[in-house]
Amino acid sequence: MSAVDLPDDPGALTPSEARSLFARGVAVPTSGWARGYAQANLIIVPRDIAFDVLLFAQRNPKPCPILGVLDAGQTSGPLLTGGDIRTDAPRYVVYSDGKKTAEPTEITDYWRDDLVTFIVGCSFTFETALVDTGIRMAHIDQGVNVPMYSTARRCAPAGQIAGPLVVSMRPIPAAQVADAVRITSRYPAVHGAPVHVGNPRDLGIADLSRPDFGDPVRIPDGSIPVFWACGVTPQAAVMESRPPLAISHAPGHMLITDARDADYQVP
Amino acid sequence: MSAVDLPDDPGALTPSEARSLFARGVAVPTSGWARGYAQANLIIVPRDIAFDVLLFAQRNPKPCPILGVLDAGQTSGPLLTGGDIRTDAPRYVVYSDGKKTAEPTEITDYWRDDLVTFIVGCSFTFETALVDTGIRMAHIDQGVNVPMYSTARRCAPAGQIAGPLVVSMRPIPAAQVADAVRITSRYPAVHGAPVHVGNPRDLGIADLSRPDFGDPVRIPDGSIPVFWACGVTPQAAVMESRPPLAISHAPGHMLITDARDADYQVP
Repeated sequence: MSAVDLPDDPGALTPSEARSLFARGVAVPTSGWARGYAQANLIIVPRDIAFDVLLFAQRNPKPCPILGVLDAGQTSGPLLTGGDIRTDAPRYVVYSDGKKTAEPTEITDYWRDDLVTFIVGCSFTFETALVDTGIRMAHIDQGVNVPMYSTARRCAPAGQIAGPLVVSMRPIPAAQVADAVRITSRYPAVHGAPVHVGNPRDLGIADLSRPDFGDPVRIPDGSIPVFWACGVTPQAAVMESRPPLAISHAPGHMLITDARDADYQVP
Repeated sequence: MSAVDLPDDPGALTPSEARSLFARGVAVPTSGWARGYAQANLIIVPRDIAFDVLLFAQRNPKPCPILGVLDAGQTSGPLLTGGDIRTDAPRYVVYSDGKKTAEPTEITDYWRDDLVTFIVGCSFTFETALVDTGIRMAHIDQGVNVPMYSTARRCAPAGQIAGPLVVSMRPIPAAQVADAVRITSRYPAVHGAPVHVGNPRDLGIADLSRPDFGDPVRIPDGSIPVFWACGVTPQAAVMESRPPLAISHAPGHMLITDARDADYQVP
């Protein structure tokens, strides 16, 4: 997989230590790495559609919580001090005209001075808070990726960027739904409170066992499906507009930022 | 002043009734109009600097709380249903190359299809909440505009947009400072909690009696100066970049939106 040894305890690394391992070729999912630090989605687009992407995020803050934006051509910034956005995620996906064309471990060869990087909040941040409060994550217990669904609900469009709201689903025990709402509403910068609790058909989701992204999870007895706005939403919308070039992180292979999960908590 | 009669009770008007009077030529400050509805700052710029302006707002959310953005050329939107951004504020200021060139009551003659309108939150929203809780506003009691100051603190720049943090100042009785913090922190979309409490020199303000914008207020005995991030900040920064054309509302002559003040309150 990689010539660089994996650390014994990836959770104990600092963000910059983790990023430096990824820059040296380690290409693994980041779940559990650099505990306590916020992981983020990446979406990188040419400057000429960056305004539409930023406006799309402004109009759809729940699925598109922007944590930071690097100016055109800029490869580092306050969320990755001393880092390089072209190498510091473990794996990327390159899209040409909206089609996936490569999944490299670094994007130096693709870099252009007109590329603008959006760093977008990720639900890993609130999952930690949920687990810390004793709410089990079924997908973690079942050893799979969280299931995600394109819904029938459209986001507010912006210029040439338009698309459906994408949601992630976590089964929550009925007695803990109120706690899950309360806890995640304290993280407005990472999707916040659920957008929907209960019947998936109201969102236009026909079959929970067939997610559009991620893996299906079994819903434990006594749990009901709870849906949160998902950071795949801006990626899906950008791809629908088929830009000549767009780059994202590979699913689960997030950017580990210098921000702490706790920084995004409101009282 | 105007051929259109002023209403007996401007506070009782709906936002669309108020906007329609302004469209017909009424050109007065909007303080007290359409009670309960959110008033907003306007900043209108050509499309080619709109990304930098939106990014500046994203990086400086306290002074630049964006409530809505109209696409290039668009003259209406959800915050002013059935309205027209070119006529519905009572008075505008037109800047050419960063210099004030006109203060018209409508901007139809200046309109271009590449103009992007930013609707920015305004402290009127939290002032209502403060007054409702029994915290008097000295500038209202003294019949003047709130005093505003350019500070020594720089905003995070974005592309060609850079400038100082501008703050508004309200003297608050010492026993009510905590309440003022608590109440305004519930309005993150309209500047939120104060950025500074007490000594103006820490902000680089040499003399409170000489504000950069608005009017000086006398500080009542037992009150201390409390400073909030101010919506003049994005205007000041845009003007510093000297765009060929930029348009704002005239001070105190705000856009009255269809959103309620209460819509911007968080628990």
